[in-house]
Amino acid sequence: MDNEKFPQIIVPTALVNKKQAKNNIQKMADKTASQGIRFRPHFKTHQSALIGEWFRDAGVICITVSSVRMAAYFAENGWEDILIAFPVNLRELEKINELSRKVKLSLLVESIEAVEKLKESVQTTMDLWVKIDTGMHRAGIAWEDKKKVEELCLAIEQNKELYLAGLLTHAGQTYHAASHEKIIRLYQESNRQMIELQDSMSNQLKRKIEISVGDTPGCWLCDNLGAVDEIRPGNFLFFDAMMMDLGVCQPEDIAVAVACPVVAKHPERSEVVIYGGAVHLSKEYLLQSRQPIYGYAVFVNGCSWRFPGRENYVVSLSQEHGVVRLSAEEFQRIDTGDLLMILPVHSCLAVDTLGSLMDLEGNHIKTMRTC
Amino acid sequence: MDNEKFPQIIVPTALVNKKQAKNNIQKMADKTASQGIRFRPHFKTHQSALIGEWFRDAGVICITVSSVRMAAYFAENGWEDILIAFPVNLRELEKINELSRKVKLSLLVESIEAVEKLKESVQTTMDLWVKIDTGMHRAGIAWEDKKKVEELCLAIEQNKELYLAGLLTHAGQTYHAASHEKIIRLYQESNRQMIELQDSMSNQLKRKIEISVGDTPGCWLCDNLGAVDEIRPGNFLFFDAMMMDLGVCQPEDIAVAVACPVVAKHPERSEVVIYGGAVHLSKEYLLQSRQPIYGYAVFVNGCSWRFPGRENYVVSLSQEHGVVRLSAEEFQRIDTGDLLMILPVHSCLAVDTLGSLMDLEGNHIKTMRTC
Repeated sequence: MDNEKFPQIIVPTALVNKKQAKNNIQKMADKTASQGIRFRPHFKTHQSALIGEWFRDAGVICITVSSVRMAAYFAENGWEDILIAFPVNLRELEKINELSRKVKLSLLVESIEAVEKLKESVQTTMDLWVKIDTGMHRAGIAWEDKKKVEELCLAIEQNKELYLAGLLTHAGQTYHAASHEKIIRLYQESNRQMIELQDSMSNQLKRKIEISVGDTPGCWLCDNLGAVDEIRPGNFLFFDAMMMDLGVCQPEDIAVAVACPVVAKHPERSEVVIYGGAVHLSKEYLLQSRQPIYGYAVFVNGCSWRFPGRENYVVSLSQEHGVVRLSAEEFQRIDTGDLLMILPVHSCLAVDTLGSLMDLEGNHIKTMRTC
Repeated sequence: MDNEKFPQIIVPTALVNKKQAKNNIQKMADKTASQGIRFRPHFKTHQSALIGEWFRDAGVICITVSSVRMAAYFAENGWEDILIAFPVNLRELEKINELSRKVKLSLLVESIEAVEKLKESVQTTMDLWVKIDTGMHRAGIAWEDKKKVEELCLAIEQNKELYLAGLLTHAGQTYHAASHEKIIRLYQESNRQMIELQDSMSNQLKRKIEISVGDTPGCWLCDNLGAVDEIRPGNFLFFDAMMMDLGVCQPEDIAVAVACPVVAKHPERSEVVIYGGAVHLSKEYLLQSRQPIYGYAVFVNGCSWRFPGRENYVVSLSQEHGVVRLSAEEFQRIDTGDLLMILPVHSCLAVDTLGSLMDLEGNHIKTMRTC
């Protein structure tokens, strides 16, 4: 195997195919632009100021993050319109106020208690979005509970510093759908519920409020994004094994693989041991024949990688070890000391845990964690 | 709930019960001392120079780590006898040589290829351990394969810079045992295999080589550690939900919990949403009634926590969100903005991903990641 393309890689490293990542960004940017929808990509997927610039090149000016710390990092890197898409953490109000003096900050709320606490502490104007649950059952007010949504909207409207921007959902149930058709149906169904709620609230408030939605499967697969004002997908930047198995992307759409040194070979079970464990790939798993697997192996191919098929996969992960089962053909080709690449199950988690990334030309890509 | 004990905690933070951690260290140190066995604890569990000092206070002078980077970190912090218990990564030979000039470094090998590469590059004396597989099937040469072990031992002996220290195993199969008795039986069986192999190799080599073993379940539960020279457990420092469910420890033995702000309450399903997700707790899971759970909830109690039972647990984790199901009684007591504590499934992974720790007096405990 020709490993000399990456001699500088000595420990597990996330390799980013920049060209493919930029293609993915452009495709989503074009779709939103042609439909007059605001594109507010989720930056938790990469957490990198440099990759943020790739989005800026595609015309993106507003972003989504999942923590106050991440908001502060991107604010420092020139982003001025930031939504923290996470129910507001009341223990961070001081930091939130500090940040809100510097940039246009939007927050997520789902309870009267949070709104009341915000009213007490807010020092500058902030946009609030009401988190709605359209079926994921993680966070948010159930979309059917119009009374509760209305109470919350009215509570926000009573304070002049707080501006009710609209209703926001993450239809993450699409991650568990069985087919393209199911994903599209779930996306459209979630949108229908949001629009019904929007109409009802807009009537009550005598002004139109917005809708923000945001899962990668729905936003990527639906040609028509529907009557929403904003989308916030993140994962489509890199995609991963989960999105591939869900049929959302093709292997060639995946823009990240974790390069791991091979440290041992076990011919009797056609397995290699890699330096690459739970602290590099995360323990997110997919089921293959009812057994959990932790990523697919791909192979160094010039300055990129090739995906020969699902028969090469990560069987188990310890803290730093990974065990990878390979086809007889691939097993023969690889030696101790070579690099094996892994398509992670969930790229956002692998990138978060690894921290530092590298492009296919060998340039380091710094992230929030490595700043 | 009285959260005022921890007002400084605003984001997910690993809280360490120092007194309990020191008790756990002392118990293991006493057991090894009384049996004349070398105690070489695994420092991957905490990755902290400060916590390393707690071990030093208990008489520990040699340690185990799982990466070259971790070895370098502890070398900088005054440790002079370090074993990297991971099959040697041939891409890091330069760093290994550099480190070996400063401290007594021991490495793990399991192939002729690795030994040959080491011979070519070794610049100072190094101890090598041959990794043996006694049933975990992750890494190492199968213990039955005496011929292969012998070849490797002889290959090492042929180089005067490389010293064959002995045979090493990690009987991680104890993590999947169903009872105390099974754990003890697996530990003893693994030791029996190692001793048989040791006798055979010592005869061949005309000198006695050592045995190093190291899983927490076996080392904690067995009163008699057996005829081994060294043990390398790590997890017993903190323990976790996995060790508790396995019956290895009691709830009160657990010395770490992750404090997470509550950001939303859902009375209709008796669930709260916490700021505390896969990037804080890791996606390691346990099965409860065949469903994966990601940790048990415990509750602030003065300057520590209380464990009311397994009916309070983490149902799901996203990147930054956790959903925790609580008993009706506990649900009533907790408010948005309070801290909820989580006993992580695997403390080593949670501590690695969180990076920064705090003791119950509110003092920060720096780790390799936060240096």
